[in-house]
Parts: sequence; C-alpha cells; structure tokens
Amino acid sequence: MASIFTKIINREIPGYIVAEDEKHIAILDINPNAKGHTLCIPKKEVNKIFDLPEADYMALMAFSRKVAKALEQVVECKRIGVSVIGLEVPHVHVHLIPLTSMEDARFISKTKMEAEAFKALAEKIQAAL
Amino acid sequence: MASIFTKIINREIPGYIVAEDEKHIAILDINPNAKGHTLCIPKKEVNKIFDLPEADYMALMAFSRKVAKALEQVVECKRIGVSVIGLEVPHVHVHLIPLTSMEDARFISKTKMEAEAFKALAEKIQAAL
Repeated sequence: MASIFTKIINREIPGYIVAEDEKHIAILDINPNAKGHTLCIPKKEVNKIFDLPEADYMALMAFSRKVAKALEQVVECKRIGVSVIGLEVPHVHVHLIPLTSMEDARFISKTKMEAEAFKALAEKIQAAL
Repeated sequence: MASIFTKIINREIPGYIVAEDEKHIAILDINPNAKGHTLCIPKKEVNKIFDLPEADYMALMAFSRKVAKALEQVVECKRIGVSVIGLEVPHVHVHLIPLTSMEDARFISKTKMEAEAFKALAEKIQAAL
C-alpha cells in the first residue's frame, strides 16, 4: 500500500509542500516539534535511509541541505537540526527541525498551528528557496 | 579553543575511534542513547552543519553512510537513526544511533557501558567497515 507520503506526492491527499524536484518533495510536518519542522522525502518509496542506493541517498541529502538553507532564512531558531528515525512511516523522511532548545529535538512537546499558518509558512519557505 | 572533538582528533585526549579518513573521524559516544551510538565528525571545526561548504557536507554524509552500514552489521537494532543537533558542542557531529524504539532517539534515557565494552565494540565496528 502506498505510504501517506506517496499519497501526498501523488496529490491524493493534501500536504503543505515547500519544495519539489523530480526525485524529492519537502512538506511541513503537520504535528511539528517546532514551527518550520519540515520533512524531506525521496519520491521512491524505500523504508530505511541507509538502504537507499548511494546516489539516491546523496541526492536526498543535497536536497535537504537546500531546504534547510531556506528554512534558516525564514524561521527564527538557533540552528536547523536533522533527524532520521522512521519507526512509524516506512518511507524515508529527513526531519529538518528549527531548534531553539534540546526539547525541539525530542519529539515530545509539539507545536499547534492552524491551517492558515501552515499555508503562509510553506509559501514563505518556497519563496526563500 | 579547540573543541573536545578536535582534541580527540589530535590524540590529546582518548576516544573510542571506529573510523577515520583524511577529513573525518567517527567515535563512540561515551554517553550513548543506545549501544553503538556513534558520532561522525569532520576534522575541520565548523559549528553548524549547514554552514559547511556543500562539498564538505556531502563528504561528511557519505562518510556517515559508510559508518552506518558497518554499525548495522554489528549492533542489533531495528534501524540506524540519524540526528544532528549541536546545541552543546559547537563542532559539527552526526549522531548515528541504533534504534529499537523511539526512546533511543530522544537523548533522555542513556545506556551505561564499561571501558572494555566500548573498546571491544569499536573494534567490531572497525572490522565491519
């Protein structure tokens, strides 16, 4: 069955898309650790990041860097953190998380945002790319 | 002042080294989230990962992938997770963390290991590279 990310890539379900190229998409996490929490996802549905062929892994990391650079310009934070876990959705995703404190990296305290705020933020990040 | 990682790279203080090349070193985290928790570090002392020049960032990610592949063979876990935070030591380091549950990714519960166990583990990972 297609993952939730594949459904967003295929526009079967909506997502706050901040960047897209031939092989990747970046969307806002709708249950963010902090404002600007973004997921960078290869369109090819692979479960574990280190099972990606080296070229695909490198392309994903280069794409993630571009998105992180845009995020840094748009969201107030001390730095952009990176996290790859994947115990819940079996489709590789790189979390980019604007960090202000260690709590933002723990996936425990979450930030509530309304649809309009997500939409405006996605547009701001897109514009910074 | 040189970071704690630069001191390990320069052999001024000891570290459980699992991999090294001209531009990078990988050492066991001595306060691990889980057994096998490893740090991949560029020898050049830069604070934030996305401030690394693109080529240096890409080389670090390629090095981290090699180490992760060795870790996967040696340590029992569901997958190798990745985390870059950097709020404590201002010298880029990529955490590779063997994950069994989400708790292993949170930097809250820590695993106690003796020096002999660290040493034996570092040797096993080295051998798998």
